[in-house]
Amino acid sequence: MVMFRVLLQFIFYFFASLLCLSQQTLTEGALSPVHPHGFNETVQFLLSNKLFKCVSGWFTKPTEKPPNSSDVYQNVRQKLVAEMKAENIKQFLRSFTKLPHLAGTEQNLLLAKQIQGQWKEFGLDSAELVHYDVLLSYPNETQPNYISVIDDQGNEVIFLMIKLQLCKTSLKKQCLPLFSHSLIPADLVYVNYGRTEDFFKLEREMGINCTGKIVIARYGKIFRGNKVKNAILAGAQGIILYSDPADYCASGVDAYPDGWNLPGGGAQRGNVLNLNGAGDPLTPGYPAKEYTFRYKVNEGVGIPKIPVHPIGYHDAEVLLRAMGGPAAPDSSWKGSLNVSYNIGPGFAKNSSTRKVRMHVHTNNKITRIYNVIGILRGAVEPDRYIILGGHRDSWVFGGIDPTTGAAVLQEVVRSFGKMKMEGWRPKRTIIFASWDAEEFGLLGSTEWAEENARILQERAVAYINTDSSIEGNYTLRVDCSPLLYKLVYNLTKEILSPDEGYENKSLYDSWLEKDPATENNSYPRINKLGSGSDFEAYFQRLGIASGRVRYTKNRKADKFSNYPVYHTVYETFELVEKFYDPTFKKQLTIAQLRGKLVYELADSQVIPFDCRDYGEALKGYSNRIYRLAKKHEEQLKPYKVSFDPLFSAVVNFSKAAAEFHRRLEQVDKKDPVAVRIMNDQLMFIERAFIDPLGLPGRKFYRHVIFAPSSHNKYAGESFPGIYDAMFDIESKADQHEAWEEVKRQISIAAFTVQAAAGTLKEVA
Amino acid sequence: MVMFRVLLQFIFYFFASLLCLSQQTLTEGALSPVHPHGFNETVQFLLSNKLFKCVSGWFTKPTEKPPNSSDVYQNVRQKLVAEMKAENIKQFLRSFTKLPHLAGTEQNLLLAKQIQGQWKEFGLDSAELVHYDVLLSYPNETQPNYISVIDDQGNEVIFLMIKLQLCKTSLKKQCLPLFSHSLIPADLVYVNYGRTEDFFKLEREMGINCTGKIVIARYGKIFRGNKVKNAILAGAQGIILYSDPADYCASGVDAYPDGWNLPGGGAQRGNVLNLNGAGDPLTPGYPAKEYTFRYKVNEGVGIPKIPVHPIGYHDAEVLLRAMGGPAAPDSSWKGSLNVSYNIGPGFAKNSSTRKVRMHVHTNNKITRIYNVIGILRGAVEPDRYIILGGHRDSWVFGGIDPTTGAAVLQEVVRSFGKMKMEGWRPKRTIIFASWDAEEFGLLGSTEWAEENARILQERAVAYINTDSSIEGNYTLRVDCSPLLYKLVYNLTKEILSPDEGYENKSLYDSWLEKDPATENNSYPRINKLGSGSDFEAYFQRLGIASGRVRYTKNRKADKFSNYPVYHTVYETFELVEKFYDPTFKKQLTIAQLRGKLVYELADSQVIPFDCRDYGEALKGYSNRIYRLAKKHEEQLKPYKVSFDPLFSAVVNFSKAAAEFHRRLEQVDKKDPVAVRIMNDQLMFIERAFIDPLGLPGRKFYRHVIFAPSSHNKYAGESFPGIYDAMFDIESKADQHEAWEEVKRQISIAAFTVQAAAGTLKEVA
Repeated sequence: MVMFRVLLQFIFYFFASLLCLSQQTLTEGALSPVHPHGFNETVQFLLSNKLFKCVSGWFTKPTEKPPNSSDVYQNVRQKLVAEMKAENIKQFLRSFTKLPHLAGTEQNLLLAKQIQGQWKEFGLDSAELVHYDVLLSYPNETQPNYISVIDDQGNEVIFLMIKLQLCKTSLKKQCLPLFSHSLIPADLVYVNYGRTEDFFKLEREMGINCTGKIVIARYGKIFRGNKVKNAILAGAQGIILYSDPADYCASGVDAYPDGWNLPGGGAQRGNVLNLNGAGDPLTPGYPAKEYTFRYKVNEGVGIPKIPVHPIGYHDAEVLLRAMGGPAAPDSSWKGSLNVSYNIGPGFAKNSSTRKVRMHVHTNNKITRIYNVIGILRGAVEPDRYIILGGHRDSWVFGGIDPTTGAAVLQEVVRSFGKMKMEGWRPKRTIIFASWDAEEFGLLGSTEWAEENARILQERAVAYINTDSSIEGNYTLRVDCSPLLYKLVYNLTKEILSPDEGYENKSLYDSWLEKDPATENNSYPRINKLGSGSDFEAYFQRLGIASGRVRYTKNRKADKFSNYPVYHTVYETFELVEKFYDPTFKKQLTIAQLRGKLVYELADSQVIPFDCRDYGEALKGYSNRIYRLAKKHEEQLKPYKVSFDPLFSAVVNFSKAAAEFHRRLEQVDKKDPVAVRIMNDQLMFIERAFIDPLGLPGRKFYRHVIFAPSSHNKYAGESFPGIYDAMFDIESKADQHEAWEEVKRQISIAAFTVQAAAGTLKEVA
Repeated sequence: MVMFRVLLQFIFYFFASLLCLSQQTLTEGALSPVHPHGFNETVQFLLSNKLFKCVSGWFTKPTEKPPNSSDVYQNVRQKLVAEMKAENIKQFLRSFTKLPHLAGTEQNLLLAKQIQGQWKEFGLDSAELVHYDVLLSYPNETQPNYISVIDDQGNEVIFLMIKLQLCKTSLKKQCLPLFSHSLIPADLVYVNYGRTEDFFKLEREMGINCTGKIVIARYGKIFRGNKVKNAILAGAQGIILYSDPADYCASGVDAYPDGWNLPGGGAQRGNVLNLNGAGDPLTPGYPAKEYTFRYKVNEGVGIPKIPVHPIGYHDAEVLLRAMGGPAAPDSSWKGSLNVSYNIGPGFAKNSSTRKVRMHVHTNNKITRIYNVIGILRGAVEPDRYIILGGHRDSWVFGGIDPTTGAAVLQEVVRSFGKMKMEGWRPKRTIIFASWDAEEFGLLGSTEWAEENARILQERAVAYINTDSSIEGNYTLRVDCSPLLYKLVYNLTKEILSPDEGYENKSLYDSWLEKDPATENNSYPRINKLGSGSDFEAYFQRLGIASGRVRYTKNRKADKFSNYPVYHTVYETFELVEKFYDPTFKKQLTIAQLRGKLVYELADSQVIPFDCRDYGEALKGYSNRIYRLAKKHEEQLKPYKVSFDPLFSAVVNFSKAAAEFHRRLEQVDKKDPVAVRIMNDQLMFIERAFIDPLGLPGRKFYRHVIFAPSSHNKYAGESFPGIYDAMFDIESKADQHEAWEEVKRQISIAAFTVQAAAGTLKEVA
């Protein structure tokens, strides 16, 4: 089977027009319009500096009225939401997705300036660009990446030009942060999703050793960086990631552009760093400013030391078809390609002497990125901040990710600006943020958090994320701190459901019906915060109460994997307009909910947090971790492992929370200092769960109750210290030492909950 | 020279009476009085539970008036200080020094209860005992410690019974925290003060290798724990500490009891841990509660793995006289014993085959300790705390250390209580603390700080230390945050000097005349905070503005060593009454100053911090560290080391501080929230210097501007990260790596100062 493929499937005819573009300077004032071809309506006209004027011109510019006009203060709650329009979100989305906005590119700086200008026009008190110089990674323009299959004579019998490269002329730069590597040829091993349990299965049940091998893993279920980490731990010398149709094609749906499925040539981009919250890999803990000390790239945090590259399922099929070795252990290891999913190592039969070789070359470059930070100053407590932030950079056009979020942010800012121009101000300050370089590891948001950590830890009330507002169109998905449960439930009752068949019902009702919580199905499901978006530094490192809301698909269908064309060039405006949210009502609903969350947090006299829900959540988490521990019941006694201190701390927390809210009801609302004292207790309760020493081996994950799972960054784990200490404990060599660590973690958890309870007590 | 000495010099005739005491149960209600013998007036009558009643009975118990009586609110500033009396301090000192109060003993618990009771009587809103279970170390009652000299036949030709043991019957328990060791015999090396520079001299100039040797170091100049650490780094297998008359006897002064010099049998107790701020060695970072996970003793923080023991100069002379090897390199290596201070290794001439052996046996025991925490609730901002804390535990009687501080605390509490009983309350809450187990490594204060870290970091305005109020009687000594400079200067101008010859002059004036600052002699000297007392966790770990004030000796005479009988059994009430402060006016002055500091911090509408002084201080520190760097001028350029970012950050800080204070003057003082916002900025400015990542290798020292010196815990070092990175840099093998670390530290310092400046800017 000699195949020589210089793959060109990727080049849509619309690329021809984009290629024209790329040869012109996008920073210039004006470019000739290129007319649309077929579905690609995004390229209807070219955007230059004129765009900003054009976009902001959509809205009548209000003139600012004197503050405190009482008519404005009335009903801002209603007016703010009524101000938001689906059509505006659509226009923002169209405008912001005309060009790729990869972090570190001129286009993305231009977009930052455009957003900054609009925010000022909308009426914010200020809108500034804040830059950092972070490590980004782009494809090497002179050395294209490819994967080859080599025969025993050393001839390249299969040559898989890595497709992302093909976009480079038009899209300039877009790749995973990687070291440059040309590996010695090696046998391939198929590792399913590359999860911890997949490698356990291989190593422990099937006796397959990945040392020195190149592994091929399908995308899905978990964060790709965890797959890479697992491959490294297994001793692999390289990892190929591919999207299997089983995970990225829905049945009965066409491939894009005719439907929303992933075409066979489509490869998912994405960073594969294991930063564990560090932000820029070269400046962990500190903002990447001009003067900041930088580690060398080979000392950088979380950068894999093996090559990694994504391919589409057409290419993957070529490799997988040739695989030898045992068959997939069970159906959970089989995708839906027409191959048998043999594990390897290596190829079958007469191809068995053939080896795979990865050629990956990247330019790592310290590159300037730009956040846009907009301020709407609070009238009463300007030193209390509500942050609404989401990223602006995208791998290509960002049709869904992030621009369905960025467009919502824009509409929310516009609406708040309108209220402000009419004379209103929120009690507290609202900070709007358009983050850069999220796709390279949450860099813009983390660097800003690092730069402003001291201010934020003393003054930030809450952080609401505004990444993609849709990842599906089935129902609402909420991940947030337990402090926000009640607020989210209350607000969703005030918003009409955009779902078909739920006309005149509330968002809460459709959400509850479609996705009730597992533990108590009389409430809609709310998930724990993990990571994978910009709230991470704010929640996991700084302990600022955070939340994210978006429209999602039916989770029962597929629990963890993303929408099919996630992080591919097919994420376009048309994808959203044609398939995901043609009316833009789902996005409007999310704009309303994000906007209401910010409004209530910023303007309520008493911060709308409920600590009692945290108590309930802690109870659930402690029961869960105890149930996990009980699986090792025969160890608990001899090693003297007791969860009693944790249970007792949780009870104390719940009591303190109940008592706190009783006092809160009685506080003299006319005494501004008395109210502020209790608001401070509310603001600091999430902070109380922060342990400055951090989690073991993950010093920037400092929240004792929640962390991104060590096995899947996207998922949230509760009591992560205890969980990780108990994970796979039976296989640890020194059982005594292992259980001592469990006890240490229980002790830390119990103390932290107890200490948090202490902050709710009367202050003197 | 065969000597067999069972040393009994220690036993004063007053011990006979104390021995009686120890055989009775001190927890019992009543003991027969034992009449005084000679000077030992402390044993005039025995103290039991009756003591408390007796002591509190000295003062007329006021009845509480309704709060807010306007007459009380007037002039509390004056009344509070006028209320304090030298005679009361004297009585408290007498009362509290009747018995030894070693941490973990029944006596010290009784004293805690007594203090708790008095605080309640004085009128505090609450006074509670708060306990922790920490690792303490006591002498082994069955295996006495001794040092012997062994001849080549293995015979013990010199036997130095370690004198501290002799007190054990009477004083129950008192020793250094140590492992048990019986060392193989080894040669002795005299290492002068055991400072870093002393070991450098030995190793680098004299070619003397301490590996496997027992070193003998004289006390003084630096914290004894640093001597031990240096000995360990040099490879020593044991260390003997002794007090040389050069450092512990003033000329023309008799030994105690006829004067205040150290007798030849007196040995200085004290812990030799290198905890670096960890508190209890087994529970670093967390409070040592019942449920807390504990490391094993051999995993504990900072516990030396070699034996250490103190001896007096009579015993030291026996060892030193026999020493061989080269002579002391210069006069700075010579004490004032009648020996030639040969360095060794080993003994001279015909004794050269003799070796020294240390036999040290201790009982390490997790022991309950008790802090007393008293609260005087604030009327306006009860959630803002001013802490006045000092330790109660002592090595023996604690005549100076800590009881001249504990007595002052008692008088300050009594005076505040009086004001409160008359209807007054401070604006902010005052927390009074009587810490336990300071002598074992600042344990009580650190554990409480750990337990309450979350509350303290959000609410604590300032910490004032109240350890020993005198360590001499020459002039004032102040170590504090630059934020407090102005307050200290202003308050000392309001207090009359207690110094002879300065009648009718202010404390400020006598202080300025006797100890002007080196940099600018128009101000009295104020020192940087190091460690060695209970402010450590509050300042170095949590970043709470802190200060300590006390009377001290003439620093020109002897810069670092303590008063002669420091930490010996000779620290008695009589020592203070006869020699140090017969009128108790020095202590009264310190009570007034500590009390005024607390009062102004607690009751001023605007927190009396001046950030501009911090700017000036930072300027001085950055210039100083740059001068140190310039000594390596030829390295700065090739390694691209620039201090410009630091200088620039310092300039920005000063500008922000000036601007802040301008705004502060203009703030509407009638708007309680506006004032609180600026007070919050003031409160958090010290916190802004905290780096959660801590200093390299010292994670609990997190203040970027100040830390205890790595070479002497007692001293404060400015920009410690940079200082330590540059220390002895010329001897480091990898110069590139070493200078990279310098650059990293400059970057951290510059960022931290810049970030602190940011917190002073307008909040939105």
